[in-house]
Amino acid sequence: MISQLIKKIQEKKAPIVVGLDPMISYVPKAVMEDAMARYEETLDAAGEAIWQFNKAIVDKIFDLIPAVKPQIAMYEQFGVPGIIAYDKTVRYCKQKGLIVIGDVKRNDIGTSSAAYANGHLGSIMIGRTELRGFHEDMITVNPYLGTDGIKPFVDVCKEKDRSIFVLVKTSNPSSGEFQDRVLLDEEQADREDVSAEELIRSGKPLYELVAEKVNEWGADCMDGDYSEVGAVVGATYPAMGAALRKLMPHAYILVPGYGAQGGTAASLRPYFNKDGLGAIVNSSRGIICAYQQNAYKEFGEEHFDEASRQAVLDMRDDINSIF
Amino acid sequence: MISQLIKKIQEKKAPIVVGLDPMISYVPKAVMEDAMARYEETLDAAGEAIWQFNKAIVDKIFDLIPAVKPQIAMYEQFGVPGIIAYDKTVRYCKQKGLIVIGDVKRNDIGTSSAAYANGHLGSIMIGRTELRGFHEDMITVNPYLGTDGIKPFVDVCKEKDRSIFVLVKTSNPSSGEFQDRVLLDEEQADREDVSAEELIRSGKPLYELVAEKVNEWGADCMDGDYSEVGAVVGATYPAMGAALRKLMPHAYILVPGYGAQGGTAASLRPYFNKDGLGAIVNSSRGIICAYQQNAYKEFGEEHFDEASRQAVLDMRDDINSIF
Repeated sequence: MISQLIKKIQEKKAPIVVGLDPMISYVPKAVMEDAMARYEETLDAAGEAIWQFNKAIVDKIFDLIPAVKPQIAMYEQFGVPGIIAYDKTVRYCKQKGLIVIGDVKRNDIGTSSAAYANGHLGSIMIGRTELRGFHEDMITVNPYLGTDGIKPFVDVCKEKDRSIFVLVKTSNPSSGEFQDRVLLDEEQADREDVSAEELIRSGKPLYELVAEKVNEWGADCMDGDYSEVGAVVGATYPAMGAALRKLMPHAYILVPGYGAQGGTAASLRPYFNKDGLGAIVNSSRGIICAYQQNAYKEFGEEHFDEASRQAVLDMRDDINSIF
Repeated sequence: MISQLIKKIQEKKAPIVVGLDPMISYVPKAVMEDAMARYEETLDAAGEAIWQFNKAIVDKIFDLIPAVKPQIAMYEQFGVPGIIAYDKTVRYCKQKGLIVIGDVKRNDIGTSSAAYANGHLGSIMIGRTELRGFHEDMITVNPYLGTDGIKPFVDVCKEKDRSIFVLVKTSNPSSGEFQDRVLLDEEQADREDVSAEELIRSGKPLYELVAEKVNEWGADCMDGDYSEVGAVVGATYPAMGAALRKLMPHAYILVPGYGAQGGTAASLRPYFNKDGLGAIVNSSRGIICAYQQNAYKEFGEEHFDEASRQAVLDMRDDINSIF
């Protein structure tokens, strides 16, 4: 699946992905009021509003981008009707030829991870009928439980031609609290004659250990030059992005944190390999909520979808300017 | 909410929680066939089957236990109909007077964590109407993103009287891969005259640092003697359970891994405080799938719910034998 993503990135000349993360505060009043006129003040109204909001934006931008990344939290907050809107959004984007990266950050112990993997990327058997639960092509996963929480996802990627992105270094301010902590090298610590200097020099941050595991997990599911096991590395930590790029030469890097979270195009060059591949940059608010920003105010709330299209064009040019 | 859980544990004399984690292979043939007769071989049939399976078991055990813990992965695998079954199960268990711990292991950066927190524990506004997305009382959360991924959950716990359990040391075989890794003490490493021995002695495993954060996050949302911020510590690592019990005196510990995963009652004493409180032990397969085990075969598949009741009684006695 990662080779298909690369193909679409090259066709569209756009190493970017649009985060479909609809908050109610992003939805234009007319869209929300229309939904409430039909469903009153219910979860169904919220589900309908975010679906209509997504659909309008996707219709205006699908030709420009290779992929979308719906953040499932923004749908799950509305309960079952929110999940219905998520499911509709995923299927609609696939109909429009987009690759769908479900930003679900799922993980659990083995049997439960297998259920998540089957539900989002694989299939399940009901009687003699093979069915999909959800329809994403790729999803994000959390590594805290180690290999046996990740393995079921990797198995499904291999069997069904899908991809995952493992959280390595996240874009949020407190990501360093655990992820940046330096780990003692176990072999060095076991040596009787080890010095303090050697211990400090041989230590590495947790995110590097996770990155090494990403390589290990991805080693036997290559799809061309890249592996089906990619990594999430936030745009907000470019020095770490550069180090992680070198450490994981075959992992595609999904880069959140551009735009609204503060990452700039210039700082993103190190996330890419020399061939201009190896990374895909996400923007969510910056695109779907463009009409609320000064730069795109001229479009007006009723043309929110046109504002999003212009924001995609601008982001594409901005990212491409670094090559 | 943790004080309500304690009250129910004391009333029922049962520091146990039943994991409602329905796999299709657990569902008796008659239940599955009935669902397929009504919905054919569809996701709706799977949703209906696991809901009927859950309902039958809950009807037979609700008087014996304080709480249930549905594992959302087992529902999510069936897409929207699975999530509908999850929602029905949560609401039904609450009607029966049970506390519901959603085993969702959610986490994300701040705004998305807030959406998960509002959706599962808090509420959202649609127009002027305040609504709940899902209806759990407590959920499990993943700490990998640090404080700003956890804070939105803590805020909702304080505002709405709910609880969370943070993954500290999970029950699975590879949980040690990251969680057990020893972290360099940053202050010691900065000292010019530090010795290797001091560095090794002052290091602590990642799960201990997470435990310290659990204390920090929970400090200002106490509910009686315990905090609304609890911890998940697997039954399969009793020595660590003992250490973590002391390290987090005010955190309720949710203990998975008893029974099917290998944890025994005798090994669980250290997870409890001297007052017999402080921990609640989960069993999933061991209860809901009791009828498939040798010990309960006599009940027969058609009386799967009676087998589950007997398994709860046996588990309760087994756990209470340690006090």
